[in-house]
Amino acid sequence: MTGATAMDLKTLIKDVPDYPKKGIIFKDITPLLSDARAYEETITRLAEPWKGKGVQVVAGIESRGFLLAAGVALKLGAGLVPVRKSGKLPRAVFGESYSLEYGTAAIEAHQDAFPKGAKVLLVDDVLATGGTAKAALTILERIGGKVMGVSFLIELDFLKGREKISGYDCRALISY
Amino acid sequence: MTGATAMDLKTLIKDVPDYPKKGIIFKDITPLLSDARAYEETITRLAEPWKGKGVQVVAGIESRGFLLAAGVALKLGAGLVPVRKSGKLPRAVFGESYSLEYGTAAIEAHQDAFPKGAKVLLVDDVLATGGTAKAALTILERIGGKVMGVSFLIELDFLKGREKISGYDCRALISY
Repeated sequence: MTGATAMDLKTLIKDVPDYPKKGIIFKDITPLLSDARAYEETITRLAEPWKGKGVQVVAGIESRGFLLAAGVALKLGAGLVPVRKSGKLPRAVFGESYSLEYGTAAIEAHQDAFPKGAKVLLVDDVLATGGTAKAALTILERIGGKVMGVSFLIELDFLKGREKISGYDCRALISY
Repeated sequence: MTGATAMDLKTLIKDVPDYPKKGIIFKDITPLLSDARAYEETITRLAEPWKGKGVQVVAGIESRGFLLAAGVALKLGAGLVPVRKSGKLPRAVFGESYSLEYGTAAIEAHQDAFPKGAKVLLVDDVLATGGTAKAALTILERIGGKVMGVSFLIELDFLKGREKISGYDCRALISY
């Protein structure tokens, strides 16, 4: 946070009740992304804690994570690695399946996504139960990455996802 | 292109034969994205033609388009608008279906993705038959956007996609 001068990003996140299913309040970040000043500030804040730490690649989780990870990679002068849903990457992958707030899924990354020992930062839009992040971290380490930490735009505190990825330096810009 | 000093981005794009189906040679851009210098140069070159033209939002097409559009938005000081596959956006959308090189699909964007009259740049990874780009452009104009142009990383000349979006200022960094 940059204090009193910081734009209130939270006001640009829209609650959508009963999406994708009844009882879930979906946090829609698209109004924040489409606001040029808010998008720039979001990327700057997501990158801030990792500046000067030698991050070599930023990994983003498909699809919304891409919208943030790409900007953070550019800001940090790092490469960008997509962690994709199953079956979307064309070459040999490492994959992990996991359960999430609603349903199950699997993600994967290319086995040669980056050189062994590379310093990696993981970026995603929302930390919910932590299942997706945990799976992504497992994959990144299997490739041989040295995980520097994880940056989220939003953390849903009540789902305690942070506990599932304890041991990692975990940051979030906005909490609910 | 920045001439003789420019890194040869093409050498970082990997041909994957018979993906996603027999007879297709897939252009895998992940080695280019994960190379920090090449990623920075790609974004710089994609943004270059639109500098100083008042682009207010950059629209990216899910999913690979996000990896480029996000960087271009940041570089141009614009907002970022995701054009997503059907059923992924939580609020009221405008959608279009189209056929592509292999199969069919539909994409959509929020009806209030940006203010009417906003200057919009469309960014995607590959111009193939032009079906996806055409559908995205139709949606962006239906929202009320003033389309400034379209920037692709790769153009597959032999598929003549450029003809399908004639009338738009269309740029591509790499041709095959």
